[in-house]
This record gives sequence, structure tokens and C-alpha cells, in this order.
Amino acid sequence: MKLGNLRDLYLQELKDIYSAESQVMKALPKMVKAASSPKLQDAFREHLEQTRNQISRLDQIFQGLGVPTRGRRCEAMEGIIKEGEEMMTIDAEPSVRDAALIASAQKVEHYEMASYGTVKAYAKMLGEDEAVDLLDETLSEEMKTDKMLTKLAEKAVNKEAIAGH
Amino acid sequence: MKLGNLRDLYLQELKDIYSAESQVMKALPKMVKAASSPKLQDAFREHLEQTRNQISRLDQIFQGLGVPTRGRRCEAMEGIIKEGEEMMTIDAEPSVRDAALIASAQKVEHYEMASYGTVKAYAKMLGEDEAVDLLDETLSEEMKTDKMLTKLAEKAVNKEAIAGH
Repeated sequence: MKLGNLRDLYLQELKDIYSAESQVMKALPKMVKAASSPKLQDAFREHLEQTRNQISRLDQIFQGLGVPTRGRRCEAMEGIIKEGEEMMTIDAEPSVRDAALIASAQKVEHYEMASYGTVKAYAKMLGEDEAVDLLDETLSEEMKTDKMLTKLAEKAVNKEAIAGH
Repeated sequence: MKLGNLRDLYLQELKDIYSAESQVMKALPKMVKAASSPKLQDAFREHLEQTRNQISRLDQIFQGLGVPTRGRRCEAMEGIIKEGEEMMTIDAEPSVRDAALIASAQKVEHYEMASYGTVKAYAKMLGEDEAVDLLDETLSEEMKTDKMLTKLAEKAVNKEAIAGH
């Protein structure tokens, strides 16, 4: 399909982030299992719930556009998650693994921030006001999650990982 | 190799971002060629120059740690760049391709922001003051590049892409 205008690109990017979110949904339960810190487990569980809502916001946007909800295999997120999965099985002290899981999760968050920032800008330019609101809600959640993970790393997990226990 | 403490993880993440930056170095000249807007071409050329400096800062850090500079195949960046390369060859109006190239570049920037944010936090925790300064310099550059790309997209490229020309 030719990308003839911004609307075509908007649709393509929406499909990309839809695939990315679906991959995150599958990865998060594994991250909960791999984490040792109960706070980190809670953070991942909470983000799983959030991700579910974020996907249903994307469903709403596709509905509004009158196109079937469909992902477009997001290879970028595949790579990010693959690296995260390596960290689940690598030989590591529990606190070091937790630090690594946070690093992976923040890469996921940053990918999503870039994507949602982009599609929100497109939606604004295209006058898709309802979509702008939905995308903005998700973008704020991703930013909050990222900040919360930074705090959890700096206040607790990284400190424990220095000695490695 | 077992990740026994934060220092081991710090080294691993440095190798990951080293590989990521090396991939960006190779991709940027192709992005310059694929871009139509002279301003966007300039932005990519400038970032190529910056990337060169960012890699030499990583070299300095490896030297300071007394370990050989070596990358650790960053699969996440491979995926991000693969998607960007698809946009270079896809059938698209020039302005739409430019918008897509900016979206890809911002995904690259966000991955780097997450990585540098992480390694800077580790360096701080480990008392590697010189590395903290070097990593902070790079992190600021990545953030500035990201903001500049947003501005370029919103003020010019996305507007042209609405009609598609």
C-alpha cells in the first residue's frame, strides 16, 4: 500500500503500536514471575492492567476510524522484549536481575512514549480530537510508569544490586 | 558470565548501547539520502556528527574501566532500525516519508534516552563520576535532538504530509 498522506501513516503507526502493546501484554506476566522484589512485581502487575486499558483505547480509535483493529508486526518491540527475556533467564543475583528488568521495562516505556507522542501529533494535525484525548491519556500513563520505575530503581533495587544479593 | 552485581550489569548495558550507537552510525547516512526536506537532511547529518562523539565518549568510559571496548549485539536497536529502513524503501509521498523518518528517528532517540538514563544512574551509584559527566552530556544531546525533531515535524513536515506532496 502506498503511503499517500499523513492519514495513511497515522493508520500504519497505530497498527505498529497496537502490535507493540499486544507483545507487552504477553511479556508482563513473565516479568512479574522473574522479579524478586514484591514492589517491582506489583509495579509490573499494575502496568499489565494499564496496558489492557491502553489496548482498548486503541480499539476505540480504530472503531472511530471505521477500520478493523489490526496490528502490524512491530519488529522494534520484538527486539526490545527479546533482550528483556534474555535477562529473565541469565544467571544473575536476584537484585541484579531486578535492576536489569527495570532497565528493560524502561526501554519498553520509552518506545511507547515515542510512538504515542508521534500518533498523538498526527491525530492533532488531522483534527481527530477524540483520538487525541485517548492517546494523551495513554502517553501520560507511560510517562508516569517510567518515572515510577526510575524511583524504584534509585531508591531500592540499584542500591541492593551494588553488593549483589 | 554471571551478573553478580551492579558493576557487571553496568558493563553489559554499556556494551549494549555501544552496539546500538554503532548501528545508528551506519543507518544515519541512509536516512540523509532517503530524506527530501533539506532541513531534515541537515538534522540527520548533524546527528551523525554527534553520534561519532557519543561513541568516543563510550570509548573513554571503557578505557577508564580498563576493559576492551566491545559491543554486545543490541537486538532492540536492530529492530528499530529495520523498521526505519522499511520506511526508506516503501512507496510513499516524499513529505510522508519524511514524517515517517522522523518517527523512526524519535524511536531511536527514545531508546538511547532510556539506555543512557539507566547507565548514568548505575555510574552514579557506583561512584564513577567521570563517566556520569560523559553520559550526562550524551543524554542531554539525545533529549535536544528529540525535541528538535518534534519541532521540525510539527512546524513543517507533518503539515506538508497532510495533503501528501
